[in-house]
Amino acid sequence: MKSNQCKIVDCTIRDGGLVNNWDFSIEFVQQLYAGLNEAGVDYMEIGYKNSPKLLKGADSAGPWRFLNDDFLRKVIPQKGNTKLSALVDVGRVDENDILPRSESMLDLIRVACYIKDVDKALQLVQVFHDRGYETTLNIMALSNVMDHELLEAFELIKDSVVDVVYIVDSYGSLDNNDFRHLIDKFKTHLPNKRLGVHTHNNMQLAFANTLVAAENGVELLDASVYGMGRAAGNCPTELLVTHLKNSKYHLRPILEILENLMIPLREKEEWGYLIPYMITGTLDEHPRSAMALRASEEDKDKVVDFYDKLTTPEVNFNKKK
Amino acid sequence: MKSNQCKIVDCTIRDGGLVNNWDFSIEFVQQLYAGLNEAGVDYMEIGYKNSPKLLKGADSAGPWRFLNDDFLRKVIPQKGNTKLSALVDVGRVDENDILPRSESMLDLIRVACYIKDVDKALQLVQVFHDRGYETTLNIMALSNVMDHELLEAFELIKDSVVDVVYIVDSYGSLDNNDFRHLIDKFKTHLPNKRLGVHTHNNMQLAFANTLVAAENGVELLDASVYGMGRAAGNCPTELLVTHLKNSKYHLRPILEILENLMIPLREKEEWGYLIPYMITGTLDEHPRSAMALRASEEDKDKVVDFYDKLTTPEVNFNKKK
Repeated sequence: MKSNQCKIVDCTIRDGGLVNNWDFSIEFVQQLYAGLNEAGVDYMEIGYKNSPKLLKGADSAGPWRFLNDDFLRKVIPQKGNTKLSALVDVGRVDENDILPRSESMLDLIRVACYIKDVDKALQLVQVFHDRGYETTLNIMALSNVMDHELLEAFELIKDSVVDVVYIVDSYGSLDNNDFRHLIDKFKTHLPNKRLGVHTHNNMQLAFANTLVAAENGVELLDASVYGMGRAAGNCPTELLVTHLKNSKYHLRPILEILENLMIPLREKEEWGYLIPYMITGTLDEHPRSAMALRASEEDKDKVVDFYDKLTTPEVNFNKKK
Repeated sequence: MKSNQCKIVDCTIRDGGLVNNWDFSIEFVQQLYAGLNEAGVDYMEIGYKNSPKLLKGADSAGPWRFLNDDFLRKVIPQKGNTKLSALVDVGRVDENDILPRSESMLDLIRVACYIKDVDKALQLVQVFHDRGYETTLNIMALSNVMDHELLEAFELIKDSVVDVVYIVDSYGSLDNNDFRHLIDKFKTHLPNKRLGVHTHNNMQLAFANTLVAAENGVELLDASVYGMGRAAGNCPTELLVTHLKNSKYHLRPILEILENLMIPLREKEEWGYLIPYMITGTLDEHPRSAMALRASEEDKDKVVDFYDKLTTPEVNFNKKK
């Protein structure tokens, strides 16, 4: 396996924030950045850059949900080699919030969208590209996209300025063969674009799928320390760092992050392979019903009833895609 | 993927017993058997058939460590389609304890050994084969076996009566490519033998590696419900049951086992992906040092110090292979 051209994008704060409403202290984020930098991780996605005006529940969230450049400069007064990234969602970002890159701490802006919004996402990409940022387009929920929709999207993408196009397994329902198939299709139709993957661990395949991507020429690999991320979580950064061949990464700083930050946090917050998430993964649907179940102290382990509800049409509430 | 010729060997009691000293109630085992049978699982490995005379600490263990045929007949008065299996270790089994299959509840006897004992294991296999059992040879710790040793073992195995030869990733250190390589080698040198795999989840690759095996013609797939097994545990039965294509398996009975038996048990006993097991996996060594660490209330999360001890030669205690 030759994968030394791969780059790791650590999403602990951004995707992990979906678990704890971005309630990370400044010191936590500073220690995480220092450790990722020492480990040689290429990018740290330090949060979302959506607009609080365009989102409900904005008041209660931690500062990593709506990144502010002045704030970021105080958090990370001295940048190392690890670049900083932020994610925005189509329809939730105000492009006026995005400074030119020369005035910002951020290096990379990633635009997430569903397939129907690829055109809008690419308009945003153009704006951020013109302001000097590296850009990615993250197409979510690919397991629910029909082939002709994807082919139409490719037509838009191939003529765009976007640097990297992401394959996102939003529901954690894809296996190695599915990833191989998708990567092959993306490479065929977008020969001029670099690729990225973002996996979820509903079926305990997040790391394995990411390795398949690395072997097949995918360059940007999303991960998070201890796999912290919504529901079943992501590909663990520690596994990529220790296992990618011919790479420059160091495991020990990630172990320090695990011991000092992530293992204690996992005592308080829940993510990872749990049966309700396995069920939504195998059924290829959004984990929101499973997240609601896990939030119920009384029912959270009633997995048989949960499965019956999702698979019996007449009682199929809670199932919206 | 065509894998409908695969057979699942559920090892929850046998390998899970290494976690809780085989402290499963009779009712627990009966419910597990009923559920596996309803789910269509092919084999249940209900314990070890070693001799208590040949093992230390035998008194404290539950009855599944030293299976007794009279006892088994009471536990499972009515067998379904799920066959019963037992594991024996070279040097720990008294062949006089093994009844003829016609007088036993067991269908399959599996002989585990390290590479140097393949000759002794095959002598046992011959005895059990002559008594009417299906047999497997489970070669452990293959990641630490040199090529010429393996080739010598193949010479013995190919002329033996053993039905199935197992590739066992004892340390959970192998990835998909390693498995592909080993399976290819086993198929080349043992064209007349069926194959099996037993994986461990130290690197979150147990399920993915088992799928690779299924796709490459391996027939017997070891698993355990909720992955219960020593240290990082095994490939989860629930994932195989739900994901193998063109198979006859049913997920719902396994979800009942999870809800009624395994999720409550996981509250009391520990197994699965934990950083000390990831560390021994990535270092390709036996998890015993990590198990000792997890048994220490004070040090169990001190993963940096643990890593330093295993990787710094002058303080490298606790590292025996």
